[in-house]
Amino acid sequence: MADRLRAAVLGATGLVGQMFVKLLAEHPRFEVVYLAASERRAGRRYCEAVEWVVSSDPPGVVCDVVVDRVDPERIPRDVDVVFSALPSSVAGEVEVGVARRGFTVVSNASPMRLDEDVPLLVPEINWEHVKLVEVQRRRRGWSGAIYKNPNCSTAILVLSLAPLHRELGVEEVYVTTMQAVSGAGYAGVPSMAILDNIIPFIAKEEEKLGNEPRKILGELRGGRVEPARFKVYATTTRVPVLHGHLESVFLRTVRDAQPEDIIRLWEEWSPLKGRGLRLAPEKPVVYRREVDRPQPRLDRSTGGGMSSVTGRLRRLGERLFAYLVLGHNLVRGAAGNAILIAEMLAAEGML
Amino acid sequence: MADRLRAAVLGATGLVGQMFVKLLAEHPRFEVVYLAASERRAGRRYCEAVEWVVSSDPPGVVCDVVVDRVDPERIPRDVDVVFSALPSSVAGEVEVGVARRGFTVVSNASPMRLDEDVPLLVPEINWEHVKLVEVQRRRRGWSGAIYKNPNCSTAILVLSLAPLHRELGVEEVYVTTMQAVSGAGYAGVPSMAILDNIIPFIAKEEEKLGNEPRKILGELRGGRVEPARFKVYATTTRVPVLHGHLESVFLRTVRDAQPEDIIRLWEEWSPLKGRGLRLAPEKPVVYRREVDRPQPRLDRSTGGGMSSVTGRLRRLGERLFAYLVLGHNLVRGAAGNAILIAEMLAAEGML
Amino acid sequence: MADRLRAAVLGATGLVGQMFVKLLAEHPRFEVVYLAASERRAGRRYCEAVEWVVSSDPPGVVCDVVVDRVDPERIPRDVDVVFSALPSSVAGEVEVGVARRGFTVVSNASPMRLDEDVPLLVPEINWEHVKLVEVQRRRRGWSGAIYKNPNCSTAILVLSLAPLHRELGVEEVYVTTMQAVSGAGYAGVPSMAILDNIIPFIAKEEEKLGNEPRKILGELRGGRVEPARFKVYATTTRVPVLHGHLESVFLRTVRDAQPEDIIRLWEEWSPLKGRGLRLAPEKPVVYRREVDRPQPRLDRSTGGGMSSVTGRLRRLGERLFAYLVLGHNLVRGAAGNAILIAEMLAAEGML
Amino acid sequence: MADRLRAAVLGATGLVGQMFVKLLAEHPRFEVVYLAASERRAGRRYCEAVEWVVSSDPPGVVCDVVVDRVDPERIPRDVDVVFSALPSSVAGEVEVGVARRGFTVVSNASPMRLDEDVPLLVPEINWEHVKLVEVQRRRRGWSGAIYKNPNCSTAILVLSLAPLHRELGVEEVYVTTMQAVSGAGYAGVPSMAILDNIIPFIAKEEEKLGNEPRKILGELRGGRVEPARFKVYATTTRVPVLHGHLESVFLRTVRDAQPEDIIRLWEEWSPLKGRGLRLAPEKPVVYRREVDRPQPRLDRSTGGGMSSVTGRLRRLGERLFAYLVLGHNLVRGAAGNAILIAEMLAAEGML
Repeated sequence: MADRLRAAVLGATGLVGQMFVKLLAEHPRFEVVYLAASERRAGRRYCEAVEWVVSSDPPGVVCDVVVDRVDPERIPRDVDVVFSALPSSVAGEVEVGVARRGFTVVSNASPMRLDEDVPLLVPEINWEHVKLVEVQRRRRGWSGAIYKNPNCSTAILVLSLAPLHRELGVEEVYVTTMQAVSGAGYAGVPSMAILDNIIPFIAKEEEKLGNEPRKILGELRGGRVEPARFKVYATTTRVPVLHGHLESVFLRTVRDAQPEDIIRLWEEWSPLKGRGLRLAPEKPVVYRREVDRPQPRLDRSTGGGMSSVTGRLRRLGERLFAYLVLGHNLVRGAAGNAILIAEMLAAEGML
Repeated sequence: MADRLRAAVLGATGLVGQMFVKLLAEHPRFEVVYLAASERRAGRRYCEAVEWVVSSDPPGVVCDVVVDRVDPERIPRDVDVVFSALPSSVAGEVEVGVARRGFTVVSNASPMRLDEDVPLLVPEINWEHVKLVEVQRRRRGWSGAIYKNPNCSTAILVLSLAPLHRELGVEEVYVTTMQAVSGAGYAGVPSMAILDNIIPFIAKEEEKLGNEPRKILGELRGGRVEPARFKVYATTTRVPVLHGHLESVFLRTVRDAQPEDIIRLWEEWSPLKGRGLRLAPEKPVVYRREVDRPQPRLDRSTGGGMSSVTGRLRRLGERLFAYLVLGHNLVRGAAGNAILIAEMLAAEGML
Repeated sequence: MADRLRAAVLGATGLVGQMFVKLLAEHPRFEVVYLAASERRAGRRYCEAVEWVVSSDPPGVVCDVVVDRVDPERIPRDVDVVFSALPSSVAGEVEVGVARRGFTVVSNASPMRLDEDVPLLVPEINWEHVKLVEVQRRRRGWSGAIYKNPNCSTAILVLSLAPLHRELGVEEVYVTTMQAVSGAGYAGVPSMAILDNIIPFIAKEEEKLGNEPRKILGELRGGRVEPARFKVYATTTRVPVLHGHLESVFLRTVRDAQPEDIIRLWEEWSPLKGRGLRLAPEKPVVYRREVDRPQPRLDRSTGGGMSSVTGRLRRLGERLFAYLVLGHNLVRGAAGNAILIAEMLAAEGML
Repeated sequence: MADRLRAAVLGATGLVGQMFVKLLAEHPRFEVVYLAASERRAGRRYCEAVEWVVSSDPPGVVCDVVVDRVDPERIPRDVDVVFSALPSSVAGEVEVGVARRGFTVVSNASPMRLDEDVPLLVPEINWEHVKLVEVQRRRRGWSGAIYKNPNCSTAILVLSLAPLHRELGVEEVYVTTMQAVSGAGYAGVPSMAILDNIIPFIAKEEEKLGNEPRKILGELRGGRVEPARFKVYATTTRVPVLHGHLESVFLRTVRDAQPEDIIRLWEEWSPLKGRGLRLAPEKPVVYRREVDRPQPRLDRSTGGGMSSVTGRLRRLGERLFAYLVLGHNLVRGAAGNAILIAEMLAAEGML
């Protein structure tokens, strides 16, 4: 393998930004060379600028990187890939500016996810959508590229749906999420709001779950993605858990199956096997046979946080199933999936 | 109003037992005259025998009642009503023994709930099922009676279904519960199991949700209850909340309606209004219009813990709705509903 | 009892403000006639302006009061008493402006607490310090008055010290606090900071514990307070508890005593007894003899939240004791103590 | 390095037992060959017998070890070292039986910790006490040996005291602990007891903190340990934290010092440096200079859970200091310290 890829992280001091920094620092293929954050954090060494909470201490290797303010024009020319953990309020404009300068952007921010010429990627599922970038470049007239991560709950759910959709056809999904507080950012959920409590609402989350899985499981035809036809009905809640979104799913399929068929579809599905990608877990979906799993605290780090963990599969009737699925919202649901996209781009010579 | 009713509580030191004691001590119509618990607690004054956790201190009025061991033969003859908060492993046999001696038993324990001759009651919904007791007495040859409370999650859910079922017809329910730890009893959920975690399994709970609502909303015909025809599909979880079960519901009805119709059905439903029953809340179902309610900590005491609080009603398609419903598992879901049954019995001269 | 006192609350939408509104609305002697909060909340009805979290719903009686912006000039002339729950950054200037207009201010904010001419009051302990107001008026040339509440941890601790100080003399206090998140305001402690965690630092809290108890237990001589001579050494921490500050105290006294002497001093101390003040608890200090009390969740509402609850008193050596003390940070530690001050002022014809 | 050491773990399914199994399985120098637990778990493969909660899954390497019932006679002769995580009610008798058979026992259980002929060891501090084993063998007439771990809070505290005691002399310690629920075992603390709460009592913990540090910091003279002369006054509490005991310390020393002197004593202290012991952390005491550290969730894994993390050191007066210290109760406070003892024994040819 050649030289390491030079990575920039925008929004590097927030929770998702911290997870980007942590995973990249541990990754032999990447080198973090540039970090940007909000004005008030800029100008300081990363270790001073950040209130680090995803482990004991920031990785030593990035400690002395001086944090810059977010501005597309300030990203050094020799950066190979720009990861964006920007808040959605500013992400759209900044990322467009970065792509226009010719950079490859892999973004966790929500704007543009549903744009026709923007690939919304879970590498195991719909890598072929990457070709939308050709449309994107042509239409937008830039040499850069914007690749998008799905919403965290979507990424976790859609991994469990993908192998079933291919074989059985998904017809309807009723999903209730129990989402960790880290999904709202460091100061997103006050302790007064969530101790001994549940907040049964997360802004815009249900719409994302309604739309994003259909695009991800859609088919690429003639330069555009035809969304899958199924419906996802969602109720999303916030629970007093630090990391790990748990989702209770009722699934109606097009063709019937027995539970063991479904478990086998999950456990045998490993489309990126053997490609040597560090963040591709051996099993993108792990099924637990215990009666009381998956549990957020015990299972969120499965596959390094990149696996969706399913459990309690029950056949309720003809073509009707219930199960639970869990994933790490900051890893597969954010930074990890984005880095896996970049690994794929590198492996295919697109970086 | 005549003299106070002399009440006994079996299983008086557990969490549900404590809530019985608390609510009865505050109730002008009842007098707690007899308390029984497990062998190892017997023989001590209630205040010494109990590890009281539902408020600062046990009510002074019961403090000196000496706890007896559970034995149907030991209940004093002049007791008017026997409340049972016994664990399900022993409840069946004991309650039968108590009824055989001629006592009226109102029980929160699960055994016999689905027996054909046992009324499973939510007074606002199916008070007419009380007539099953005639069958029960005839068949079992006793002068006593056993009335049953539903399972906690069921009681909370079914209040939200009842007014809709009458007008629109319930066809299918997909429910995911987020249940408080107090539902498992004082030592039921270790802190190591639930801090920063969710347990996605509660033994037998999903079966109860599948069966009990259908009996409660069933029709009494010729001395038996014809269960309602709808299906309830349930996934039940335990969350780090002290009190208050929150349930995420997807509901398919037989006839269509607009959200405001449903809200009106909920808010205007008050079948026990004006009967002067202390534990009958003014509104059995309270709809909250805020975007982020109901919340367990804020809403569990609505109507003194006897109301189901609904919120976030959305129409997802034709005859398809989503909403959340919350209730206090120890009050409407246990002791409160049982005491309301006894109030009704007294009001109708059946005690 | 004459007419009700017309009360204003400044900072009415914060947590302490909400507790002021709740306690005043339940209090037969007060009428809430004026509410002010930050600019962005002003102009709306209180029920719309506030994110109410101290119970299910704001009291109906204040729901329609339109919230004004904070400005001393806008308080109506006929207000009898102005309660301040303003943040410390603005409290000083505003309260001076209000007093200058002739109003009586009872304030929970920290500025001026240690000013020589400002009474820092716990009514049971040092009501005679109220006379400092004469100095205050003379020196500052206003007809109004500013009375201060102590810091929450101080109010709770000093109640446990006061009856002992009189009899035994306090020489040294080593105190470690475990403070509830509500002490930091609604959004003060992010859930990411405190779930499965403790924050061993609260800004300025240790200095307040070092100084305020000495002023409160000081002696009024010649128009000024001579601080008590003892030392308070404090380490303050934030714990995942909603309400109720628990403090672990090691106390060295001047004269020796046996534990039962100290318990008697606590339990028999009731300086405001019989004065008919609603917020004066029967016992300002309640000693619990159980081996594992006081506990925040079980004991914080003792005496309506106005009692300090002590427990686990141990004599460690000559003149050396250990015990724990707990109190409700929003009631005795904030709004409740302030309202009790106002009740005293009214009782003594000073309002 | 020679062959791997054959290790047995008694009490292998409890929380401390699980941590033993986890740390030993990850340790290149040990091989887990024998596991014993209570009768009701015996006879099953470890992976089936255990409710594993210290990570996602038990280490594969021990999964098929069949759990035996606890009986000194059943331990295979070729075991090199027996780790005991037995409950204190049975530990004494069993461990004596094991030592009598000639085995080396390293025990985390409390009985015999204060026995005159039993070394109570924190390897960095008092390794020379290991010589007590000669007395033990002579007196008890066995060829085996019993070495004891201190109580968890003690191990964490005493690491912070040791380097100071040598240089400055410890005179008095006032310590308040905030202990994690895992310290009480898996089912030790019900969630109903600790959610939104603190339990200000842990049975026998304060006595242990009073006695064990004095033995550990005592001097070996003529075959016995002369306890150190200082006093430790303790109040111990249980908080809603999973792992990591935090302790608030007020320390009076014999000689005065400046904070930077103390920090240097902590940071430069590394008595086992260069000995190649896997569980000996580079720094037994790590001082954090941030204003709000140590925090349990962020700092409990410092040095692999083997370091005590200190912070917030303040000089309060002459020879009087305040600081906080944190450690991982299951690692340094239990299994980790015991394994480090075994590593030392092996390094010195005593195994």
